[in-house]
Amino acid sequence: MGSPRRLLLVSNSTLRGGGYLGHCQQAPRAAGRVRRVLFVPYALHDRDAYARRARERFKSLGYGLDSIHESCDPVEAVRKSEAIFVGKFYLLGVLWISPAHSLHCRDKEGGDGIPYVGSSAGTNIATISINTTNDMPIVYPPSLQALGLVPFNINPHYLDPDPKSTHMGETREERILQYHEEPNTPPVLGLREGAMLLVEGDKATLQGVTGARLFMRGKKPTEHEPGTDFSFLLTEAL
Amino acid sequence: MGSPRRLLLVSNSTLRGGGYLGHCQQAPRAAGRVRRVLFVPYALHDRDAYARRARERFKSLGYGLDSIHESCDPVEAVRKSEAIFVGKFYLLGVLWISPAHSLHCRDKEGGDGIPYVGSSAGTNIATISINTTNDMPIVYPPSLQALGLVPFNINPHYLDPDPKSTHMGETREERILQYHEEPNTPPVLGLREGAMLLVEGDKATLQGVTGARLFMRGKKPTEHEPGTDFSFLLTEAL
Ligand SMILES: [Ca+2]
Ligand SMILES: [Ca+2]
Repeated sequence: MGSPRRLLLVSNSTLRGGGYLGHCQQAPRAAGRVRRVLFVPYALHDRDAYARRARERFKSLGYGLDSIHESCDPVEAVRKSEAIFVGKFYLLGVLWISPAHSLHCRDKEGGDGIPYVGSSAGTNIATISINTTNDMPIVYPPSLQALGLVPFNINPHYLDPDPKSTHMGETREERILQYHEEPNTPPVLGLREGAMLLVEGDKATLQGVTGARLFMRGKKPTEHEPGTDFSFLLTEAL
Repeated sequence: MGSPRRLLLVSNSTLRGGGYLGHCQQAPRAAGRVRRVLFVPYALHDRDAYARRARERFKSLGYGLDSIHESCDPVEAVRKSEAIFVGKFYLLGVLWISPAHSLHCRDKEGGDGIPYVGSSAGTNIATISINTTNDMPIVYPPSLQALGLVPFNINPHYLDPDPKSTHMGETREERILQYHEEPNTPPVLGLREGAMLLVEGDKATLQGVTGARLFMRGKKPTEHEPGTDFSFLLTEAL
């Protein structure tokens, strides 16, 4: 038996005016005794620059950072990692690259609570599926299943309908309700920018400042303040 | 040999204040001598109500409307149809239902220019792939290939970046540029709400009022006024 699960699932890496990861004060708590973080920089084609920015930021928080793209053996890098940080990335399709798959296996086999901090699409892939990402399907994934570190879905960058907008595209709420017209679909937690979910073992708590909107199939969506106990979402049979 | 291709690819069905299909004055021109239109209502679970609304609208334009969901043999309905209208729908996954597949086959076999009017996701599926839809991937499609009635991609509901927004999610332009980081990706025409593309044989013309933004891999995006001749996009080898 390993240590309990420790996850920090963040809506987005940057709040305007707040700097990169400036609002993620809970990251150290999620990370526990970790000294070095493994960074997964597949968001951007210039991975060196992306990793450099992350390395500076983590250094200022007191952590070393290794970027998986610099490793000769990415699968081994995941196996050995103390903690993992995944920011936004080309979500669809990247999920089944071998390091991510290795992370998946490590979680399944070991159950050893590898600390995981996800932001934006990094949050999507920690959930049960990537059905509620905001990305265009620019590449074709072999499946929409995700790592399943929690048994529900999250919609990061959750955006409230803008009553002043003349844009006729579907709102996030409309898309999530369409998702819930499919049978047996899990809850979707709409995490506004500035919100994040801290998961420690069987306890899940809403952090940040902006709150979240929870969608359960067949029920009215509900509004939740920071501090809300979402542990019930960790129970598989909802 | 059949008649030349006749397509009207619309950004969106409703402009605020303009009513359902109110801005699609080119629809009759695309439809030619058609009297009845086959409607594909898979957008909404209440297909009866959706078809009723479309039937009223098409009646006021002088057309009869059959909804494919009322047909005992949807594949046969597509084969016999004079023209097809596809609005928004659960884009991902619905594409390979048999009627859509039948439409695809009819186009490939006959080359007989069945008039096709698409709006929103109905426009996405007329293009070469659905990589540039705005939908969440709420269901898993067997492929991202689309009908290929034109050899490029369209992003309907194209939205310009809002300089006043504090939202940090990627803009449409950013997503399309990410798509173009993939090798061998076709042009993407960003159709603003209120814009549409009329295709007659080898001629493609931008219609409507709001203009379009064209993205070609490796080039700077370009702005285009209504009336622009986009026929060059119909040439496969770009
Ligand atoms: Ca992304
Ligand atoms: Ca849709």
